[in-house]
Amino acid sequence: MLSQNRLRDHNIEIGVLQPGTFNAITDVPGVRVGHFTLIEGDDIRTGVTSILPHSGNIFQEKVPAAIYVGNGFGKLAGYTQVKELGNLETPIILTNTLSVPTAMNALIGYTLSQPENKNVRSVNAVVGETNDGYLNDIRGRHITEEHVLQAIENAKSGPVAEGNVGAGTGTVCFGFKGGIGTSSRVLPEKSGGYTVGVLVQTNFGGVLQIAGVEVGKKLGHYSDSFKYSPDGSCMMVVLTDAPLDSRNLERLAKRAMLGLSRTGGIASNGSGDYVIAVSTAEACRIPYKSDNSIQKVPTLRNDAMTPIFLATIEATEEAILNSLFAGETMVGWDGHKIKALPKEKVLEMLKAAGKID
Amino acid sequence: MLSQNRLRDHNIEIGVLQPGTFNAITDVPGVRVGHFTLIEGDDIRTGVTSILPHSGNIFQEKVPAAIYVGNGFGKLAGYTQVKELGNLETPIILTNTLSVPTAMNALIGYTLSQPENKNVRSVNAVVGETNDGYLNDIRGRHITEEHVLQAIENAKSGPVAEGNVGAGTGTVCFGFKGGIGTSSRVLPEKSGGYTVGVLVQTNFGGVLQIAGVEVGKKLGHYSDSFKYSPDGSCMMVVLTDAPLDSRNLERLAKRAMLGLSRTGGIASNGSGDYVIAVSTAEACRIPYKSDNSIQKVPTLRNDAMTPIFLATIEATEEAILNSLFAGETMVGWDGHKIKALPKEKVLEMLKAAGKID
Amino acid sequence: MLSQNRLRDHNIEIGVLQPGTFNAITDVPGVRVGHFTLIEGDDIRTGVTSILPHSGNIFQEKVPAAIYVGNGFGKLAGYTQVKELGNLETPIILTNTLSVPTAMNALIGYTLSQPENKNVRSVNAVVGETNDGYLNDIRGRHITEEHVLQAIENAKSGPVAEGNVGAGTGTVCFGFKGGIGTSSRVLPEKSGGYTVGVLVQTNFGGVLQIAGVEVGKKLGHYSDSFKYSPDGSCMMVVLTDAPLDSRNLERLAKRAMLGLSRTGGIASNGSGDYVIAVSTAEACRIPYKSDNSIQKVPTLRNDAMTPIFLATIEATEEAILNSLFAGETMVGWDGHKIKALPKEKVLEMLKAAGKID
Amino acid sequence: MLSQNRLRDHNIEIGVLQPGTFNAITDVPGVRVGHFTLIEGDDIRTGVTSILPHSGNIFQEKVPAAIYVGNGFGKLAGYTQVKELGNLETPIILTNTLSVPTAMNALIGYTLSQPENKNVRSVNAVVGETNDGYLNDIRGRHITEEHVLQAIENAKSGPVAEGNVGAGTGTVCFGFKGGIGTSSRVLPEKSGGYTVGVLVQTNFGGVLQIAGVEVGKKLGHYSDSFKYSPDGSCMMVVLTDAPLDSRNLERLAKRAMLGLSRTGGIASNGSGDYVIAVSTAEACRIPYKSDNSIQKVPTLRNDAMTPIFLATIEATEEAILNSLFAGETMVGWDGHKIKALPKEKVLEMLKAAGKID
Repeated sequence: MLSQNRLRDHNIEIGVLQPGTFNAITDVPGVRVGHFTLIEGDDIRTGVTSILPHSGNIFQEKVPAAIYVGNGFGKLAGYTQVKELGNLETPIILTNTLSVPTAMNALIGYTLSQPENKNVRSVNAVVGETNDGYLNDIRGRHITEEHVLQAIENAKSGPVAEGNVGAGTGTVCFGFKGGIGTSSRVLPEKSGGYTVGVLVQTNFGGVLQIAGVEVGKKLGHYSDSFKYSPDGSCMMVVLTDAPLDSRNLERLAKRAMLGLSRTGGIASNGSGDYVIAVSTAEACRIPYKSDNSIQKVPTLRNDAMTPIFLATIEATEEAILNSLFAGETMVGWDGHKIKALPKEKVLEMLKAAGKID
Repeated sequence: MLSQNRLRDHNIEIGVLQPGTFNAITDVPGVRVGHFTLIEGDDIRTGVTSILPHSGNIFQEKVPAAIYVGNGFGKLAGYTQVKELGNLETPIILTNTLSVPTAMNALIGYTLSQPENKNVRSVNAVVGETNDGYLNDIRGRHITEEHVLQAIENAKSGPVAEGNVGAGTGTVCFGFKGGIGTSSRVLPEKSGGYTVGVLVQTNFGGVLQIAGVEVGKKLGHYSDSFKYSPDGSCMMVVLTDAPLDSRNLERLAKRAMLGLSRTGGIASNGSGDYVIAVSTAEACRIPYKSDNSIQKVPTLRNDAMTPIFLATIEATEEAILNSLFAGETMVGWDGHKIKALPKEKVLEMLKAAGKID
Repeated sequence: MLSQNRLRDHNIEIGVLQPGTFNAITDVPGVRVGHFTLIEGDDIRTGVTSILPHSGNIFQEKVPAAIYVGNGFGKLAGYTQVKELGNLETPIILTNTLSVPTAMNALIGYTLSQPENKNVRSVNAVVGETNDGYLNDIRGRHITEEHVLQAIENAKSGPVAEGNVGAGTGTVCFGFKGGIGTSSRVLPEKSGGYTVGVLVQTNFGGVLQIAGVEVGKKLGHYSDSFKYSPDGSCMMVVLTDAPLDSRNLERLAKRAMLGLSRTGGIASNGSGDYVIAVSTAEACRIPYKSDNSIQKVPTLRNDAMTPIFLATIEATEEAILNSLFAGETMVGWDGHKIKALPKEKVLEMLKAAGKID
Repeated sequence: MLSQNRLRDHNIEIGVLQPGTFNAITDVPGVRVGHFTLIEGDDIRTGVTSILPHSGNIFQEKVPAAIYVGNGFGKLAGYTQVKELGNLETPIILTNTLSVPTAMNALIGYTLSQPENKNVRSVNAVVGETNDGYLNDIRGRHITEEHVLQAIENAKSGPVAEGNVGAGTGTVCFGFKGGIGTSSRVLPEKSGGYTVGVLVQTNFGGVLQIAGVEVGKKLGHYSDSFKYSPDGSCMMVVLTDAPLDSRNLERLAKRAMLGLSRTGGIASNGSGDYVIAVSTAEACRIPYKSDNSIQKVPTLRNDAMTPIFLATIEATEEAILNSLFAGETMVGWDGHKIKALPKEKVLEMLKAAGKID
């Protein structure tokens, strides 16, 4: 099922670099993703997605990290400490806007309960969100801590389910059904051979472009201004095994917004567009406690960053488009209905534009 | 009881400007403060403090705001949206580090439940915190949503209780018992006549100075390095009725750190030092919805800011010292004990230095 | 001559909004642009471009402004004061990297010499730059203060020369001849009817896309990695008559980077990508001195910003492409040669993609 | 002459840490400082100060760096590139406000002319400034590139001249004669044994405090509001041999503002308060070109930063006070006269406060 709904299943290629084995964030070695999808009755259409940068105790072995705020109309938790200390100490959780505190509580409980953390009294929970309140009874706050822990529990390597799953269950993108999407790029050896993986939760708007084809304009589906609200948000998680410090991770994070732009995203006033970037390189991990106040950290030079920037842009664009290709028509809260991207029409347009045969 | 524990009760004056009626954040017209103190058994020493910038529906009538991060080893919630949109839409809540999500959930519930907000599906809860985990069983997460709502309910104008109350119940400052402190300044008419009020939750360290007297050094009470951990955090809330936009509020917020410095604070690595600044000026309020896309906002010119900066510095220094003067010896979690500032010794030092008669 | 080298002369349209009369930054009322082009001998290929937000004394009547740093490998002057005070007090000058100080000196002299400014002793000169050192003997620093004053002198309203002129004389974009480009958008009345004008100095790289068509990839003209260096820089100047404060101008400035992305720009490590955004709205001007410490400023609400964001993205994309369409093959320093964009091939590609008939 | 004008010559000690050999920025191994003082006729009172982090070619061997903006009403050059790339590639130059471009031109010329830099076409000149326009004919722009090169030429290790020299020749601090000041701290071995050196150019205001004694208030010398303008600026340069990355250097730079606060500084609206922080640790240098895209960099852990923060605060406070103790009464431009700090009165006050015997 996964295989027939992705951009590349239709021979649509984005950019000039090659994806990894699964064309997913899980191509970055050691990374795992877990979904918990909550669809109940007529009104509940929401969920949780977890991204684990490595399989150890993340609090004890922190990872270099940065968060870039493309547009800050959002409630992402954990920003200021990541900025100050340059690291991440919990799994990354994505969910709906009003369930951020519940997910934080779950992450705190998760961390406190790990045996090595028995003396820990401070946890910086990183939780991203978008607002699924058009299809989901968001005011009901139906996500529980148990659901969040389940999403962590479900985390696994390999292919990643996309579309109406996990934190993407009830999200809307360019007026069509969005959701979770993912993609990756592997750099040529001479550029370091690093993998860059991206996972997105798409819930934003603008004037949709697919592989440069002005789908939104051709469909007349974009505004007056706008036929649908371009507000919403997009969470972008970028992981790489390149050995990057938090400064260069923040630079990389900024490039994800350039990928978003290529899909026609405009970062509207009401959008919460955040990019969480992490280096999973083992030699860069930061032990919670250490006898040595100095750590010798391998660090990529500034002038080796350009290919990683390009990889980030391409993988983000493709991850967003994958979320649209995977999204399926949904009816939810208050009878609201959001249709899937009309893929047949889109494919015709792409054919006409010579993008595919 | 309040009256005998404050700096000015001992004729110690900070700075060159005059305080308002209560020498409290509540001197800013319309501002209310509420505490909920949780002291139970041997181990629970924590609480919640609420600050309400006006008496209306804050979500419907937002206030210009900014948050400055002095040192970001902290979990304050709501930063990025305040930065992006330049406003605050909930009461400000202070509590302990691990209870931030619970306080957020309470603020979300509070906001959703107000009748005018019945269609609201997004709330940016602003919650500050410091870590009271030395005196309080913080891992137990004993604060409930009900406690937070109670702190809001308790909000009132007039004198503000200081020391071991509300969010300051279990905090430690310069190795002595800290807590809640407050102070204010009223500018001369020619400088606009504005009031600046500050409330702090003190839980940080350094080398204590009181009115410039090196108390920490004289007592040998500061480090080797350090006799107590200088880590901890300080939340500073600065409210003013001056008509300021978010840019000038952020500038003002930065000055609170200068006030902290004058008490000997050093913003240690492990400190989460945040300043939340708000203008309560009625003409500056931002309606949630408006038929008019343009708002005529009275805005203070840059070159009128200097006296407000000075007022912020003085009131922050005095508020921190007030928290120390009000703090009382406490025994809490795991038998830990923190003594009150040895006020008699301190007053002798101040006498010897000619600060008081 | 101008008319046959622009994107719209070939019926290529970018986006869904309409341009203004000249499809230039000068569509914003009162705005003037001036070029000084320096082509001498075999090796000198450089120049200066001035942008004047209004026709008065800019120091005495400052304009709200913000600068966004897309990627800070650059030497733009004036950033920190614009950020702190939220305004611009000189004309904007663009030139080559090593001539920034000379342009600053010229702007200081220009300001000091205005009769109303006879007591002025501090001037925040705003000068942007890109590095034209491939075609120009940049180490020779051939720009003089006189040249800069000439560019200001030359400023006029109406159509703007593009391509190899002014600060764009020697710049290179996507491996082709870049230079100056401009475009504008006028919002529908219901969105406020505002004009957004953009002027760019293009000297950057990536994988060129024109109206979504992957020109760089098709031409195999982009890297291995890369056939040309993607480094360089892009200066983007965005002016609007919408009444915006500096916070919303900074948000708007960020959107110009989204426009750059749609041309295939990647903000490479070595790129200095800066956006200078200014509101020319007369009621928003900030007098240098005022008897009144409070100014009543009309300010557009956050929720009216989205159409302005879209306009900025579209106009930036088109301005960049216009610079490429106008750029002409140039031979310069050390015999280096940069070819113009192969427009015939490009137009064929656009035809094949159905973008034009 | 130097020896009798410093704070410690009067047995006044600031803080709890010990200074280095010279109690100067030059205590940091390899650091050199040079002054060029320009006093001519009745009206010219200005100069240049250079700080060289090491004796090699700084462009070829860049140093990790950060700049913190305490208050950005200033014209410091080079900020955005230091922020983006995390390094410094020129000597640091301090001079007067309107001579920044001339100093930049000098630094560019200096860098281009070094034989190893013969292909360099981009230089990020870092120049700080304060406005000496009360005592100096600043509009005359009397500093030449030759003067700047002379200041670099004059750089030497060992004791540093303070007061009315170099970039401090015509500056005013708290209404008294300010100028150049310096101080240092050496950490105990258990805290790493690092040296932190600070050099300041003082030209700002507030309500002067010396070692905590309210000198400004007692002298009635501070405002109505204010008897002198508190505007002006302060440049602070902090160098250390601790192995710090740019993120932790920025954190350290923020602490210099806390030191400034302890002298009574308030960062008034018109002040340009900037801190330039650099690590001189040899293993942290960043070669301009390298065959290896990965560099193994020793990096101090976040949790080892606190003593360095304290050292920065103490050395900044003392450096500022040293500038006041060294400053001598000066008559300059337009007959303006600024008196030296009344040291005898001040020493009496300090005696009365028990600070000295």
